[in-house]
Amino acid sequence: MPEIEPTPTSSWVRQEDGDRTLEENWLFRLRRERYRSRTSGRAHDYYVIHLADSVNVVALTPDERLILVRQFRAGSGRDSLETPGGLLDPGEDVLSAGARELLEETGYAGDPPELLSIVWSNPSIMTSKSTTILITNACLMAEPQLDHGEEVDVELVPAREVPEMLRDGRISHSLVVVGLLWWLQSRPSGSA
Amino acid sequence: MPEIEPTPTSSWVRQEDGDRTLEENWLFRLRRERYRSRTSGRAHDYYVIHLADSVNVVALTPDERLILVRQFRAGSGRDSLETPGGLLDPGEDVLSAGARELLEETGYAGDPPELLSIVWSNPSIMTSKSTTILITNACLMAEPQLDHGEEVDVELVPAREVPEMLRDGRISHSLVVVGLLWWLQSRPSGSA
Repeated sequence: MPEIEPTPTSSWVRQEDGDRTLEENWLFRLRRERYRSRTSGRAHDYYVIHLADSVNVVALTPDERLILVRQFRAGSGRDSLETPGGLLDPGEDVLSAGARELLEETGYAGDPPELLSIVWSNPSIMTSKSTTILITNACLMAEPQLDHGEEVDVELVPAREVPEMLRDGRISHSLVVVGLLWWLQSRPSGSA
Repeated sequence: MPEIEPTPTSSWVRQEDGDRTLEENWLFRLRRERYRSRTSGRAHDYYVIHLADSVNVVALTPDERLILVRQFRAGSGRDSLETPGGLLDPGEDVLSAGARELLEETGYAGDPPELLSIVWSNPSIMTSKSTTILITNACLMAEPQLDHGEEVDVELVPAREVPEMLRDGRISHSLVVVGLLWWLQSRPSGSA
């Protein structure tokens, strides 16, 4: 299972005297944080966005269709086709969070989740990790329960079409692509 | 070649009267931007980080070693093993930017670059796209020329070891992982 290296090393050490919070809101905290190089002794200020970890769910129906959601994304300024998912609540287990997000966004629930992969979302500027989990035998169990401001269309696509959807860019959110590529790697048939 | 869908659709439209710049610095501009749903008519404020596009370089030596760089990343608070790369200069071509970053960070240069994939870095909050390019026959041509604050160690690893390094998390930056998975897919031998 792709994971994150358990023994971190760090060539720079934190100098908390230079830290400053630049923005704080319901979603993230933006800070300027000062570190000093163990090698050169030089100090450097980094921008760091403190954001909750997230989960993406590769969810498959009994007839091998992948459950996707289409929603507006303000960073790209367009609608984006993605696996269901979202941010973990404080203290929440990633497998429970994935099952919760799948149910809330799509109304589907399935077998107990399995871990597929974990990556740093963007370690140069964000503190968050992104985990992809697999839920099979997903069936429609409820009406979606969306958060305020969320408008999500659910789309089911045959699993065999996913490689082509990654290649032609219909699915192009990096964290979704990495999760789906790992899922394809883990399948007997293999490649994208 | 994995790319981004050429015909964008957007279910929300921009309402510029609600926009506000929250932070602006040499690296990015953080804005709160208001959009209105075409479906429901409701308005919602999104946080958007305006950041330059980036490029990652899968660079191989004539004897099939992959050129990697190890550097401190403040988001994860630890050192990170990555393909060379960086942000595009304004107006810069992505292929030229990749060759430039490879040379600056590692001193290596090789054959004309080829596009491997392009994804949105994190379209829910960032405007940037991330492109991965391939440069083969890379040879050491110069001393690295690092930017202020950059401290980078160059590491060469046999290409055949990359799948294991992705699986065990030694390489765990999402944008690097997605580029390397696409590169492995494109090779005759195939999977990770």
